[in-house]
Amino acid sequence: MSNERVIYLPLGGAGEIGMNAYVYGYGKPGKERLILVDLGVTFPDMDSSPGVDLILPDVSWLVKRKNDLEAIFVTHAHEDHVGAVAHFYDRLGAPVYARAFTANIARRKMSEHGHPEKAVKTVSPWPETVKAGPFTVGFAPISHSIPESSGLVIDTPGGRIVHTGDFKIDMNPGVGEAFDPDMWREIAQPGVLALVCDSTNVFSKNEGRSESTVGPEIEKLIASASGMVAATTFASNVARVKTLAEAGERAGRSICLMGRAMKRMVEAAVETGVMKDFPPVVSPEDAKGIPRENLLLIVTGSQGERRAASAQLANGKYMGMTMTEGDTFLFSSKTIPGNERGVGRIMNQFSEMGVDVVDDSDGLYHVSGHANRPDLEAMHDLIRPQMVIPMHGEHRHLREHVKICNAKRLRGVLAVNGTMMDLSANTPTVAEYVDTGRMYLDGSVKYGALDGVVRDRIRMALNGHVSVNVILDENDEPLGEPWCEVMGLPELGKSNAPLVDVLEEDLSQFLGRANARTRADDDKLSDELRRVTRQSGMSEIGKKPEVTVIVSRMN
Amino acid sequence: MSNERVIYLPLGGAGEIGMNAYVYGYGKPGKERLILVDLGVTFPDMDSSPGVDLILPDVSWLVKRKNDLEAIFVTHAHEDHVGAVAHFYDRLGAPVYARAFTANIARRKMSEHGHPEKAVKTVSPWPETVKAGPFTVGFAPISHSIPESSGLVIDTPGGRIVHTGDFKIDMNPGVGEAFDPDMWREIAQPGVLALVCDSTNVFSKNEGRSESTVGPEIEKLIASASGMVAATTFASNVARVKTLAEAGERAGRSICLMGRAMKRMVEAAVETGVMKDFPPVVSPEDAKGIPRENLLLIVTGSQGERRAASAQLANGKYMGMTMTEGDTFLFSSKTIPGNERGVGRIMNQFSEMGVDVVDDSDGLYHVSGHANRPDLEAMHDLIRPQMVIPMHGEHRHLREHVKICNAKRLRGVLAVNGTMMDLSANTPTVAEYVDTGRMYLDGSVKYGALDGVVRDRIRMALNGHVSVNVILDENDEPLGEPWCEVMGLPELGKSNAPLVDVLEEDLSQFLGRANARTRADDDKLSDELRRVTRQSGMSEIGKKPEVTVIVSRMN
Repeated sequence: MSNERVIYLPLGGAGEIGMNAYVYGYGKPGKERLILVDLGVTFPDMDSSPGVDLILPDVSWLVKRKNDLEAIFVTHAHEDHVGAVAHFYDRLGAPVYARAFTANIARRKMSEHGHPEKAVKTVSPWPETVKAGPFTVGFAPISHSIPESSGLVIDTPGGRIVHTGDFKIDMNPGVGEAFDPDMWREIAQPGVLALVCDSTNVFSKNEGRSESTVGPEIEKLIASASGMVAATTFASNVARVKTLAEAGERAGRSICLMGRAMKRMVEAAVETGVMKDFPPVVSPEDAKGIPRENLLLIVTGSQGERRAASAQLANGKYMGMTMTEGDTFLFSSKTIPGNERGVGRIMNQFSEMGVDVVDDSDGLYHVSGHANRPDLEAMHDLIRPQMVIPMHGEHRHLREHVKICNAKRLRGVLAVNGTMMDLSANTPTVAEYVDTGRMYLDGSVKYGALDGVVRDRIRMALNGHVSVNVILDENDEPLGEPWCEVMGLPELGKSNAPLVDVLEEDLSQFLGRANARTRADDDKLSDELRRVTRQSGMSEIGKKPEVTVIVSRMN
Repeated sequence: MSNERVIYLPLGGAGEIGMNAYVYGYGKPGKERLILVDLGVTFPDMDSSPGVDLILPDVSWLVKRKNDLEAIFVTHAHEDHVGAVAHFYDRLGAPVYARAFTANIARRKMSEHGHPEKAVKTVSPWPETVKAGPFTVGFAPISHSIPESSGLVIDTPGGRIVHTGDFKIDMNPGVGEAFDPDMWREIAQPGVLALVCDSTNVFSKNEGRSESTVGPEIEKLIASASGMVAATTFASNVARVKTLAEAGERAGRSICLMGRAMKRMVEAAVETGVMKDFPPVVSPEDAKGIPRENLLLIVTGSQGERRAASAQLANGKYMGMTMTEGDTFLFSSKTIPGNERGVGRIMNQFSEMGVDVVDDSDGLYHVSGHANRPDLEAMHDLIRPQMVIPMHGEHRHLREHVKICNAKRLRGVLAVNGTMMDLSANTPTVAEYVDTGRMYLDGSVKYGALDGVVRDRIRMALNGHVSVNVILDENDEPLGEPWCEVMGLPELGKSNAPLVDVLEEDLSQFLGRANARTRADDDKLSDELRRVTRQSGMSEIGKKPEVTVIVSRMN
C-alpha cells in the first residue's frame, strides 16, 4: 500500500463566516501536490480592527509550499470567496480557475492590482473538468444568490471529494442554475470520500425558501407605494438585484441602479451573458426627469455602510436624488450581526425625513442564499459521503453541523482553520496543526492581525494619548520644562485646571527629584516619565492614557 | 382664561432606547414649576464612544431651572431610568421619589457617590399620591420585568397625564404586580389629557407573552441537561432571575448566583420584601462541593460584556467554577442590537469547550418586558386620552407609534428630545426647542459628547498616531534631526524601511528647505510638519496618521 494521502486544510472560513480558503492535497506526507479552493476576505469592524480596510487569510503556509500549489479554484464571485485572489497573486502565483462570471470579477480584481488577467482561466461547468496535478476538478452548478455558483467535484487518486461552496436548495433561484438533485445523485454515484459542506445556516430549522417567493411580495409593496421607492441589498446578491428590478418593472417603474458596486455587478453579469433579461435601467441623471412615483432606485448599503448610496440618501442626497416624505425605503436584506447600529442609524434618519422604512422583519422581502438545516440534511442524503466536513461557519456552526451528522450516524469531522486532516486513513485524523490567522490590509500595507498595530489603536481609542517631551543638557539636567500634548482626553480634570498643566507640573516635579542615574538612562527615564504621566492622569481624570515619551539630549 | 400651561419636554429617551429623562411643567411660560420623570443612562460602544464609561443625558436646561424643579420621580429601577440619579444629584438637588425597591437601588447609588440617602423618598403605590408644587403624582403599579414598576398618574391643574414608564401587559409577571385593567380604566375615568407611552416594542406585531410562559420551558431544558447548566439574563431583569431560579429548583438543582450585579439585585429585592419566595441559593464556594448535574448557575453577562461572569466562564473560569464538555449554557435574553459580536464570541468559546449553547432563537426561553403593538393599542383603548405622546424609542419607533395612533383617529404627538410641547393648547404645539444631548462619563470626568474628545480617539483608532518632535536654536535652525514616534501604525511601509525613518527623513528634508519665516512661526511650522508627516504617511503606508507636533526652541 502506498503512503500517499488526501489532506484537507482550511486556512480561512472554518471558524468564521467569511474569508474562505481551503487547501486540498494529495501525495506523500509533506510532499502533497496542492490545490486551493476559494481565497476570500472578511470585513473589519471598529470593535476589533479599527482603521483596517480588509481582512485576509494568512496564507504563509501556502506561500512556503507555493511550488506544490497546482491551482486555485473559485466557487463563486462573492468577496468572501474571491476577494483575496488578487492580493496574493504575487505570493502564490498559481492559475485561478472559475466559471465565466466569477472569472470576470476575478479578472477585474487582477487588473486593478496590476496583475495579468490571463492568470484567470475560464472553465465550463460539470461534466467538464480541469486537471491540476493529481486532481481533476469539476464545477457543478449549484443554486446560491449569484450567477454560476458551483460546488466542486474534486477527484483524487484517494477518492472523490464534493466541496459545496455556498449553496441553497432552490429550484427557482432567479439567477444561476436551479438546484439539480439528479446531477448530484449522479456525482455521488461512484462514492464520495468527503462532503465538505457550507454550515452558515445550520441553526435555521425550517426549509429554506426560494428566491422566487420574494418577487411577488416586493412587487406588491412597490405597487402600493405612493412616492419614490428605494430598495437596498448586497450588490453581490445579483439574484436579489434582479428580483428587485423585475418587481419594479412589473409595478410599472423605471429602474435606476445606484452605487458603484451595484453597477459593476450588473455590468459583469450582462457582459458574461449570464443575465440576458435584466430590465432596462435609467441613469441617475435621467431619473431626475421621471416622476418619483414612477421610480425604483436599487442602491448599495444594505449593511449601513457609511459611504454607500443608502447612507448618503439618508444623509440627504446621492447623485442628485433625495428621499422625501411619503417615499419608501426597503431593506431587502438581512442585517449581518454587528451592523445593527449602522442600519438603525439609517432607518432613523429616514424616519426623520418622513420616509417609510420597510425591512424583512415580517419575513416577506428577503430569503437567505444558504442551505438551512433540513436542506443540509437533504444534501447529506443526496451525496451519502463517508464523512461530512462542515466548513464556512463559526465554531458553533461547525459543531452543530457535526452534531446533526452524528444524529444520523454519519461521520462529521470538526476541523477549524489550521487543522490539517488526513482523510485517507480509515478514520480521518489530524495530520498536523498549521499556523494560520488573519492579515490586515491597512492603507497600502499588509500586516499580521497580532502584530500589535491594531492593539495600540484600540488602546488609544479607549485611553486617549499623551505626547511627553523632555530635553536634557549635556549634564542630564532638564532644559526648560517638560512639555505635554494630549489627544482624545478631556481638557479639564479634578483640579479644574487644564489637564496638560497638571501633567506638566507633575512631570516637572518628578524631574526635579529624579536621580542622576535615571536622568542619564533614556529607557529608564522614559519609563518613569510614562509612569508619572499615567499616574497623574489617573488621579486627575480617572484614566491612564497611552503615552509617547521623547527624550532629547543636547550634547 | 389664565395663560398657565402644561409642558412636556423629553431630555432623553425620545429618540433613543435608553437614557430616559422627561420633564413636565405647569405654570406661566418660562415660569413653570417642573418635575422630572426618570433620570437614566445609556451605554457606550466602540463605534461611537470608545473609552467612555457611561452616557448621561445633558440636563443643562434643567440645571438652569433647578429652582423650579420640585422633584424627580423614578418609575422603576432599571439603569436607563434610575442610573443617572446620583450623577446629577449635586447639580439638581431635587428629592427623588420612588417605590421601596426602586428607592433601595437609588439609595445605593446615592451612597456610592457620597450623597445623602435621605434625598430618596419611598412612596406607596396608587391610590396614594405625592404633592410636588402644582403636581400630584401617583405610582400606579404596572407589569414589567422588575419589582414595583409603575406608571405615573400626574395630575396638574391643566389635566391628568398618564406616563406609562416601561410596561407590558402581563397578568402573571412573576415579580411585580399583574397588569390591572380595572385600575387603569378607573384612572382614565376623569379624562386624560395625554398618555405618554413606552414605544420600545412598537414594531412587534403579536401580543406580548407572559413571563409565566418561560418557566416551564426552562425547567424542561434544565431537567433534560446532563451536566451543569448556567443561564444568563440581565441582572436587572429580576423577574427572569426568579423564573430561572424557580425552574432550576423544580428541576432539582441547587441555585448559585454569580456576578456582582446579580447578587445586588436579588439582595435588594429580598431586603425590600418584594421577593419573599426566592429559592435558597448556594455560594460559589459551596457550589464547588455539589455534583455539577445538580447545579444551576445564574450569571451576569447576557450581552457578552467582557468582564461579566459569562465571559469569564467562557474564558475558562469564574470564582473557581469551570464549564466543560456536556454542560449547557442558556442565554435567557435578547441580544441588544450592537452586542451580537460580543455574544457570538462567547457562544463560540463555549462551543470550543464542548458546551451546548442554547438561546432564544426558537422563542422558548425569553419574553420581552415591553408592550407589543397590540398591547400598546390595548393601553390606548383603556386610557382613551386626548393625545398619545410616544416616548422611549428611537425616532422610527416614535414615528410608528404615532402612525398606529393616527390609524385609530387618536392624536399622536411626535416629540423628540429637546422638543418642549405645550399640551394645554387645543392642539398641542411646540413651545420651544431646547438644547439637549449627551454627556459622557469618562474615568472621573464628565464632558459633552460633542466636545471632540471622542472624535479624536476615533481618529487615532482609524489612522494611528505620530508624535513629531523638532528642536530649534535661537536662530530658528534645527538642532539635530526631527524625531518621530509612532503608535498604531505598521513598522514597515512601501520602501521597506522603518516607517519612522522615512518620516524623519522627509521631515528633515522639509526643514532643510523651509524658509526662515516658517521656521520662526510656531503655528505655521507645526502645520507644515503635520502636513509633511501626513503626506509622507500617505505615500509610504497609504494612510494619513493623526499627528502631534512639539516644537521646542532653545533660547
